[in-house]
Amino acid sequence: MTLSRESERPEGASWRQSAYDIIFLADTPAGRWFDIGLLLAILMSIVVISLETVPEYRDNEAWMLRLWSLEWILTGLFTAEYLMRLVCSRRPLRYAFSFWGIVDVLSILPSYALLFAGTSSRSFVILRSVRLLRVFRVLKLWRMMSDADELSAAVWRARNKVVVFLAVLLVAVTISGTLMYHVEADLPDRRRPDSQFTSIPQAMYWAIVTMSTVGYGDVVAKTTPGKVIAAGLILLGYSLIIVPTGFVSAELAGGKMGSRGNEPAADIDAGSPDSCDVCGRTGHRDSANFCDQCGTSLERSQ
Amino acid sequence: MTLSRESERPEGASWRQSAYDIIFLADTPAGRWFDIGLLLAILMSIVVISLETVPEYRDNEAWMLRLWSLEWILTGLFTAEYLMRLVCSRRPLRYAFSFWGIVDVLSILPSYALLFAGTSSRSFVILRSVRLLRVFRVLKLWRMMSDADELSAAVWRARNKVVVFLAVLLVAVTISGTLMYHVEADLPDRRRPDSQFTSIPQAMYWAIVTMSTVGYGDVVAKTTPGKVIAAGLILLGYSLIIVPTGFVSAELAGGKMGSRGNEPAADIDAGSPDSCDVCGRTGHRDSANFCDQCGTSLERSQ
Amino acid sequence: MTLSRESERPEGASWRQSAYDIIFLADTPAGRWFDIGLLLAILMSIVVISLETVPEYRDNEAWMLRLWSLEWILTGLFTAEYLMRLVCSRRPLRYAFSFWGIVDVLSILPSYALLFAGTSSRSFVILRSVRLLRVFRVLKLWRMMSDADELSAAVWRARNKVVVFLAVLLVAVTISGTLMYHVEADLPDRRRPDSQFTSIPQAMYWAIVTMSTVGYGDVVAKTTPGKVIAAGLILLGYSLIIVPTGFVSAELAGGKMGSRGNEPAADIDAGSPDSCDVCGRTGHRDSANFCDQCGTSLERSQ
Amino acid sequence: MTLSRESERPEGASWRQSAYDIIFLADTPAGRWFDIGLLLAILMSIVVISLETVPEYRDNEAWMLRLWSLEWILTGLFTAEYLMRLVCSRRPLRYAFSFWGIVDVLSILPSYALLFAGTSSRSFVILRSVRLLRVFRVLKLWRMMSDADELSAAVWRARNKVVVFLAVLLVAVTISGTLMYHVEADLPDRRRPDSQFTSIPQAMYWAIVTMSTVGYGDVVAKTTPGKVIAAGLILLGYSLIIVPTGFVSAELAGGKMGSRGNEPAADIDAGSPDSCDVCGRTGHRDSANFCDQCGTSLERSQ
Repeated sequence: MTLSRESERPEGASWRQSAYDIIFLADTPAGRWFDIGLLLAILMSIVVISLETVPEYRDNEAWMLRLWSLEWILTGLFTAEYLMRLVCSRRPLRYAFSFWGIVDVLSILPSYALLFAGTSSRSFVILRSVRLLRVFRVLKLWRMMSDADELSAAVWRARNKVVVFLAVLLVAVTISGTLMYHVEADLPDRRRPDSQFTSIPQAMYWAIVTMSTVGYGDVVAKTTPGKVIAAGLILLGYSLIIVPTGFVSAELAGGKMGSRGNEPAADIDAGSPDSCDVCGRTGHRDSANFCDQCGTSLERSQ
Repeated sequence: MTLSRESERPEGASWRQSAYDIIFLADTPAGRWFDIGLLLAILMSIVVISLETVPEYRDNEAWMLRLWSLEWILTGLFTAEYLMRLVCSRRPLRYAFSFWGIVDVLSILPSYALLFAGTSSRSFVILRSVRLLRVFRVLKLWRMMSDADELSAAVWRARNKVVVFLAVLLVAVTISGTLMYHVEADLPDRRRPDSQFTSIPQAMYWAIVTMSTVGYGDVVAKTTPGKVIAAGLILLGYSLIIVPTGFVSAELAGGKMGSRGNEPAADIDAGSPDSCDVCGRTGHRDSANFCDQCGTSLERSQ
Repeated sequence: MTLSRESERPEGASWRQSAYDIIFLADTPAGRWFDIGLLLAILMSIVVISLETVPEYRDNEAWMLRLWSLEWILTGLFTAEYLMRLVCSRRPLRYAFSFWGIVDVLSILPSYALLFAGTSSRSFVILRSVRLLRVFRVLKLWRMMSDADELSAAVWRARNKVVVFLAVLLVAVTISGTLMYHVEADLPDRRRPDSQFTSIPQAMYWAIVTMSTVGYGDVVAKTTPGKVIAAGLILLGYSLIIVPTGFVSAELAGGKMGSRGNEPAADIDAGSPDSCDVCGRTGHRDSANFCDQCGTSLERSQ
Repeated sequence: MTLSRESERPEGASWRQSAYDIIFLADTPAGRWFDIGLLLAILMSIVVISLETVPEYRDNEAWMLRLWSLEWILTGLFTAEYLMRLVCSRRPLRYAFSFWGIVDVLSILPSYALLFAGTSSRSFVILRSVRLLRVFRVLKLWRMMSDADELSAAVWRARNKVVVFLAVLLVAVTISGTLMYHVEADLPDRRRPDSQFTSIPQAMYWAIVTMSTVGYGDVVAKTTPGKVIAAGLILLGYSLIIVPTGFVSAELAGGKMGSRGNEPAADIDAGSPDSCDVCGRTGHRDSANFCDQCGTSLERSQ
């Protein structure tokens, strides 16, 4: 989303240009206020959507009227903002089919769908929470995204480890779920109809809830062997939580250290066999041509 | 809260000065004992306030008498201490309107309010726990606060990341809460009145309880799709906990490494002004005598 | 599992060789597609096994027919794959008694056992989840295993610490379990038959569930002293979780740092054999020319 | 527990000396087997004590007989071991009143107390779990204790931070507990007798269970403001768990780096002003007398 094209603007369309600056850019005072206002409107619309489902308000005519009015005002504002974006944008179609353009449409459509199609379109309502994604566009324009990028980079560097971790986790969940189902509910000699482990998927749900230390308690082991297995699985899950934490910590610490001081890391690593023939000094950088102690040429790979 | 002004004291008011030394300073033996006594009095007053609400004691005349007596003795002591602070302080008004001055008043007022206004002022009672904040003033004067400062600094350096993290968390909570409400309680074709997901705010409460791995179990998914979404959300929450831990760990490790004799860092960091005069290469080790690129003598500090 | 012997293949048996390449190797396109197909078949067979236990499907003739058909197709495929492995392998017996060979047999036997021995062999069914272990063989051939090795190495380096940690944990669990049993259920002067702490093993199960922060809530303290002990144990468990995390983090960070240009480490580590001939002082830096205690020239490697 | 005095043994009492070697030392084969046997005996006695409380065994004459026999055999062995330690030890009284001597007595006394004093001494029974502490003595003699020491050192270095952390935690627990009690159970205008927050200590128990992410679910917020406060507290607790983890991780990572190569940290830190007057080389160890590059005397503090 490089918006630097704004410098090529035609001088004539001044109001379109100012609207563009306010809506799409964040580094002018007006643009910042617009972003803060938009952020508040998005949050308020989420609050309104949430309150509409609370029984106390849903069954109260007066409140529902207020909430609906508020939602229509906000939907109107979002519609106006969307149209302004289309008008201001140099390439309206490109904006309309971009990721954020689609998010913008999806966040206003459900309200209109409710109006025209009635309650038969209620499953559209879920789409209204798409509005929240727009929070990220507002944040994206601020400088804190560089930190998010640093985090993403650390997660990305550790991606293979995360895949291995998830594979180990899923295998542990499936095996312990199968085991618990057979131990708790379905041993050959007795079938317990009152067990909470009604099926293997249910037992796998229990295993995930247990290994992540969430522990709702809606499904719990009731037999002694089941409790022993559960205790073992808890200790395993307790140990497994170390893995991703350690990996990302190490990546973040490594990234930090690496970026500090010219990547001494790789540079010296490869250089370690290249000890100086004259003074024996080691630890030269890959890019070193001369020994930094006695000044002799290192002449590598000869 | 620099209290070094005490050296400008007038020699005359010796008792005020000694009281000042004892109450406001912590580096004399008397001041330390005063602090320890104050700490114990604060903790004891919290214990008294807590016990007053326990049914066994609340319904027992004899116990309530003892607890009330104890509370009035402690309130009397705190009042005396507050008055002494006002008297001893060089600028009583400034103290009275400082942060700690207000905390001190708020921690004794509710007891008097109960006496004069009766039970109609019960909401004041909550303010009595403000007393606990005074624990920090006592600790503040001790040297362990430098460690707290180190932690605060690490958290402060990571503040942007924390904001990004909280934004991601809140978006995840809202979207999964909305989804779970519609899946568990309110699909277009069937509305389940017996679901525990009675509204979107309730579902968001569930999402926070789940993602933080608290998992009370008072609200749990009961349908199969709900359980699948819950399992996915748990795995997501399990991964998200890495993020802040990793960030602060990295910041703390980074800060420690930086402050500790700038070892690997400084060797190169400090060397950066020592660029080679001939080829301009930087990043030489402290112990380097010759440029490792062109072999010129570095001849530092001449 | 070094498979490099394939270069010594006899040129004649071309179909056996191609089958070998596809089944045992992962770096050809055909081999990769075979692996992906196998992975999907394994996952699908797990899904089928799981669904067979869900009441909705188990009590439904039509669904059970479909699931059984699917399972027999998959069992047939796995059998064919196993026979192909035996035929292709240069040393079939060696394969048959290798770890993966046994896993392969165990993953198909239970289905046949059910067919021939009927429901009396139901405890064999648990063995079907052994199939999941095969997921690792498929992953093993991919390059992400180097990351798993790095993790294993970090865990292995920290093994003594893990043993100490588990010993501390088990002692804490046993002592607090015994204590809670006596406090909650079995004090000399009163025996509470309605307590959830019915025995010491049950109390130890509670202690594990509590210290790992799982907290099902199926066993909870109900007396005041029990709650005080529980709160203390929770704080202890909360502190203990630091230990393994910290250890593995440090190992991973250390490993990363160590492998990265052995910077501070090697400088002194490598120097340790270079003890001073005169005073015996060790720990000199690689770049040291003179003993830093007595000033004697170190004259290395001469 | 330095046991090097054994070299001063009188040559005569050879059986006492061999018994001493076996019982007190761990580096001979006999001593190691003795330790392993003792470890198994301790663990078995814990299993016996636990099983005695399980209803199925407690109400079964035959089982109780077996368990009691086993316990008396083990108690006899421990008594014999204790007497041997007294006899073998050079200074029996000193051993008897040392920490491990008292642990040894406490681990056998409760069994005899039960025999002589009958069930009126049942509270002594708790002391039997003291036996478990002896596990540490056995482990202490093995080399893995150096890792435990490393951990203890890291925790010890971070002790001030842990105190600050616990202070913050306790203040958060007390304030949120008080708040929740007033919000959930005891607002001035309505008092809810059915609330689970029956008193401030109960609310503080809830706060600890919540902030540590244990989340039993036996005490949960039921009002909307209570749930909002609970959600906030959960997020706070979720953030607080970072703190100790980060600190100890950083200490361990720091310690590892420090201990790797003779504490270059403190050594060089202090030494950094002591650059060599002749060659300007820095980074000498505190204990260095001569420059390790040019051999010039460093002559500090003159």
